[in-house]
Amino acid sequence: MVVVMKPGSSEEQIQHVCSLIEGLGLKVVVLRGTNRTVIAAIGDKREQDREFLRAAPGVESLVPILAPYKVASLEAKPEPTVINIGSALIGGEKICTIAGPCAVESREQIIRIAREVKQLGAGALRGGAFKPRTSPYAFQGLEERGLEHLAEAKSLTGLSIVTEVMGVETLDLVARYADVFQIGARNMQNFHLLRAVGERGKPVLLKRGMSATMDELLLAAEYVLAAGTHDVILCERGIRTFEDHTRNTLSLSIIPALKERTHLPVIVDPSHGTGRQSLVIPMSRAAIAAGADGLLVEVHFDPERSVSDGAQTLTVEMFGELMRQIRKVAEAVGRTA
Amino acid sequence: MVVVMKPGSSEEQIQHVCSLIEGLGLKVVVLRGTNRTVIAAIGDKREQDREFLRAAPGVESLVPILAPYKVASLEAKPEPTVINIGSALIGGEKICTIAGPCAVESREQIIRIAREVKQLGAGALRGGAFKPRTSPYAFQGLEERGLEHLAEAKSLTGLSIVTEVMGVETLDLVARYADVFQIGARNMQNFHLLRAVGERGKPVLLKRGMSATMDELLLAAEYVLAAGTHDVILCERGIRTFEDHTRNTLSLSIIPALKERTHLPVIVDPSHGTGRQSLVIPMSRAAIAAGADGLLVEVHFDPERSVSDGAQTLTVEMFGELMRQIRKVAEAVGRTA
Amino acid sequence: MVVVMKPGSSEEQIQHVCSLIEGLGLKVVVLRGTNRTVIAAIGDKREQDREFLRAAPGVESLVPILAPYKVASLEAKPEPTVINIGSALIGGEKICTIAGPCAVESREQIIRIAREVKQLGAGALRGGAFKPRTSPYAFQGLEERGLEHLAEAKSLTGLSIVTEVMGVETLDLVARYADVFQIGARNMQNFHLLRAVGERGKPVLLKRGMSATMDELLLAAEYVLAAGTHDVILCERGIRTFEDHTRNTLSLSIIPALKERTHLPVIVDPSHGTGRQSLVIPMSRAAIAAGADGLLVEVHFDPERSVSDGAQTLTVEMFGELMRQIRKVAEAVGRTA
Amino acid sequence: MVVVMKPGSSEEQIQHVCSLIEGLGLKVVVLRGTNRTVIAAIGDKREQDREFLRAAPGVESLVPILAPYKVASLEAKPEPTVINIGSALIGGEKICTIAGPCAVESREQIIRIAREVKQLGAGALRGGAFKPRTSPYAFQGLEERGLEHLAEAKSLTGLSIVTEVMGVETLDLVARYADVFQIGARNMQNFHLLRAVGERGKPVLLKRGMSATMDELLLAAEYVLAAGTHDVILCERGIRTFEDHTRNTLSLSIIPALKERTHLPVIVDPSHGTGRQSLVIPMSRAAIAAGADGLLVEVHFDPERSVSDGAQTLTVEMFGELMRQIRKVAEAVGRTA
Repeated sequence: MVVVMKPGSSEEQIQHVCSLIEGLGLKVVVLRGTNRTVIAAIGDKREQDREFLRAAPGVESLVPILAPYKVASLEAKPEPTVINIGSALIGGEKICTIAGPCAVESREQIIRIAREVKQLGAGALRGGAFKPRTSPYAFQGLEERGLEHLAEAKSLTGLSIVTEVMGVETLDLVARYADVFQIGARNMQNFHLLRAVGERGKPVLLKRGMSATMDELLLAAEYVLAAGTHDVILCERGIRTFEDHTRNTLSLSIIPALKERTHLPVIVDPSHGTGRQSLVIPMSRAAIAAGADGLLVEVHFDPERSVSDGAQTLTVEMFGELMRQIRKVAEAVGRTA
Repeated sequence: MVVVMKPGSSEEQIQHVCSLIEGLGLKVVVLRGTNRTVIAAIGDKREQDREFLRAAPGVESLVPILAPYKVASLEAKPEPTVINIGSALIGGEKICTIAGPCAVESREQIIRIAREVKQLGAGALRGGAFKPRTSPYAFQGLEERGLEHLAEAKSLTGLSIVTEVMGVETLDLVARYADVFQIGARNMQNFHLLRAVGERGKPVLLKRGMSATMDELLLAAEYVLAAGTHDVILCERGIRTFEDHTRNTLSLSIIPALKERTHLPVIVDPSHGTGRQSLVIPMSRAAIAAGADGLLVEVHFDPERSVSDGAQTLTVEMFGELMRQIRKVAEAVGRTA
Repeated sequence: MVVVMKPGSSEEQIQHVCSLIEGLGLKVVVLRGTNRTVIAAIGDKREQDREFLRAAPGVESLVPILAPYKVASLEAKPEPTVINIGSALIGGEKICTIAGPCAVESREQIIRIAREVKQLGAGALRGGAFKPRTSPYAFQGLEERGLEHLAEAKSLTGLSIVTEVMGVETLDLVARYADVFQIGARNMQNFHLLRAVGERGKPVLLKRGMSATMDELLLAAEYVLAAGTHDVILCERGIRTFEDHTRNTLSLSIIPALKERTHLPVIVDPSHGTGRQSLVIPMSRAAIAAGADGLLVEVHFDPERSVSDGAQTLTVEMFGELMRQIRKVAEAVGRTA
Repeated sequence: MVVVMKPGSSEEQIQHVCSLIEGLGLKVVVLRGTNRTVIAAIGDKREQDREFLRAAPGVESLVPILAPYKVASLEAKPEPTVINIGSALIGGEKICTIAGPCAVESREQIIRIAREVKQLGAGALRGGAFKPRTSPYAFQGLEERGLEHLAEAKSLTGLSIVTEVMGVETLDLVARYADVFQIGARNMQNFHLLRAVGERGKPVLLKRGMSATMDELLLAAEYVLAAGTHDVILCERGIRTFEDHTRNTLSLSIIPALKERTHLPVIVDPSHGTGRQSLVIPMSRAAIAAGADGLLVEVHFDPERSVSDGAQTLTVEMFGELMRQIRKVAEAVGRTA
């Protein structure tokens, strides 16, 4: 950590900051420049909150040097983590495509979709039983009945189940059915939930919050990892910006940037990331080309009858086309799909 | 709702969209322009999900006309809601300042601060017992013990308690102590929590999410209102943008914009909204001048010893100065503080 | 400047970076921490480009310590700059309101508006003769004829003229009429224009770019100041964010933040900053309460007949109301208006 | 265009809006819904400014239906535009890579780089003679001498020259040397320059502004096209968001989105789009996979000695690797490189 003092800060203020830093168990080096005094703090106490230093008289700014996460970092584990979710691996040479409807709507719907995406090469089945909806008047999911339908689809196809858990109070229920807990973008910083999910030990698919920085995503993963799980899959799903040609701005540069920081696998959700059916295939190709380990895609045999997210949902035929296209791109980057 | 068809969309596609709209129980008017056909849907079914229409062949875009919230709207209740939180009213002529430390750190700390802010004119006491922290290694709050200290501070000063509830699983506990449930920015779309809190009937202070639009904030309020509570206080606390001179961008224009849409009171958190102690007083003045009904301010007798958020916390002396200054501004806009 | 090396960077890489820094004429201090080596560079060479250091092997990041601007900084001139624009001062105790139509539309229009705003207390007259328009098909201004009308309005009312200059090639022409050169948000980083305008010596009203940081705004001012002008008025006019309840997000916190950095006066354009007539008065109050030295406001006797920006333009009656309200707020913060 | 009236708007207000619309030469249809009256305007007068309608009493919002650009639209020209820039085509089957240093630094530098990138497959040479720099103290380019060096590099390698023109006043000079005029992101809405460049008839490479929407980019292209040029190359170069792991957020979804709207070719600048050398190759792959027609890449034999933008500049070896990798991806999407 480096503390930058204001121009004209007094010797007393400098000494006061030094003593605050030493109180944290860190070593101090004072650098007196032409215009500014800078105080460097040496030592690794990244788990301590040091923001309070900004309030000390004479302090202009505080520059952290160490990344605030540990277990998620490449320094802690230099080799990539490959996660076994049952019906597929995520993080290995083969791209894993998790496909299915936005929401489970009926037994027939989820079984039909599961069979079709399985045949086309999906590695796991997605489908929401609890749905986070912006409006209280929108469809909120079939809840336990939806989970039962997912279980039946799994038993018929062998596809593992990726489904969202929305709160600690429904975690026991979801845990009976899910192979992978999905944490939605709106819950990326629901810290009680992160910790509770982490304690279960099952793989967790953690979606990036709509306005989360890379470090905040890794710190959310750190909550899950610190609670006991080894297996966290990071998922880029678009961020909120001023752009209006898509629902969100899919920020693919986070894929190679994460790979320089963490051993965890990274997948992409081009459905929410664009919000537009016609952009899902090109952005899936781009995600794989950028180095993504997998995709999370919304597929329905009749998008316009789907109860939610129809605008961004692929038909089964389009999903077949997506698989054909990403196989070629995967090969171009030395992988398979 | 208005559906805009793509140029060159076929008669069959237009008829198909018409039949989908009629299926929702809405009346259809087809407008054939020079370049585009536009289909207007007449009737109020705003509680239905109509996004699926975007997936119909030939559809270019969908323009909602009605605001998606009902109970929160001025149309439902044209006169302003004044909320009685016990030690103060929020939404009336008098500005209500809710002050206190970021986190409850000890019995002595919270009692001392409560007494001092009370004397300087605070209308309620804030203080976190459960703290949402970006890092799992940061201080997470005193939990139940913190709530007990708050209760003691209340009994000694008469100030009502505003404190954050982070999850459904701790709601019973928090409900025993809180006069106002605070929902943090990261939980603005934790829909299970919104509903559970709404069912309690107590006033709720709902912070705007870091990347929430005005409509999303009002829909989150609608979740709480639809569950039974009448009393929701909206709180602007800064949004996430590219700006780097503050921690967040405090968007004060949402105050008068909300007043044109909703009867609910609106307050401002200049501490999180700026992240910088030196900006808290000027932005508090600006918030009152823009029409805010109150403030939520972090105050500590020793900000640099505070366990969290020290950089944005006022000293008690500064809080006194804030009160003096906002009283003058309140008067200039025909109110008191 | 502080250079942070990657974990595991080699001694050779560290020495290489040291020699690059010494090559800039700076002194080097190497700090070897538990996980990272950090290299501090001491000395003031802020005018040199040092970004190339990021490309040196082993470098993780580069943290500048000194602000990149000099002449604009409080360190260079601690007392506030008060600018005499002819019919008013900007930066002194009295708030200066610059009012007028978006565009000059006719001789009668500009003279009528000038007379009315003058009577209501405006300190200068705004009005565009050259208009930057997003669409090539929109009205582009009366050009020289518009400037002549402005001159006539000035001679009749005594109000100084604030008008936009859009390019170096029309600077001579605009210079014959303008008392203050306005640089539009889209031209904030038109560096040739900044320099050319700065060489004229007249006051410059510099609007913040739609996505400019505070430092970039100050560096744009530095271009003008470095070219010779002493008088730059900074203008917040809203930034581009995800918000959709206004045309832009008016970021008032930049006012007190700028006051901590620069001696230059700061004004606010609530018309472009909100894009909505009904928000202009409350946000004007807020701007003055936050410490602004003035306002730039669009006024027209018939906004819905105005050729551009009608949606955000005040009627003359509303402008009178604005003046009444900001006078009270100005008094509350120890100023006049 | 659709005008949405406020709830409770009067019959008089509705008639007033109708007459304003009819005054524009448009046909009016009034739709009276349960809660709102909506007025549809039929006819194509997109070149008229209609924003003033927002100021009419009773108007809540205004929804444009037609895209505001014409010549750039697919409706005007359904087949893709392939642009001949001399040494390469842009927009055809073959991907065109424009490579070279950020700035021309010397005769030897630009000739050496031109030869090396030519040999590795570059289709044209980039290099700035006039440099837009955020700080007035940074290197501003060799100006005319830089253009002469570019001409010599062209005569030796046959590579066409892509170079930035920063203002109308230097356009004659740049026109003597440039094969393609580059308009920088900061000048995307320098409308005088757009028009002046368009009048020359040479191909124009138009960079997207840092906070420009897709429509604004297309309207900027419309300025150039309306002035006479047929050949505009659109370039995504990253937008400004809250992300801090890159210098800008490279928004690749704009590629397929543009292809649905315009016949103009689209290229990507992964150097500015990321600001980090290590991310340039993965994001180049992603750009091609998303459907880009070309790349604009910064290459230098010694990035850390480059006078500007070293942090994002590839070495010649890395550029060779980039070409190898994008050839494979191009093939995977049915193209060559």
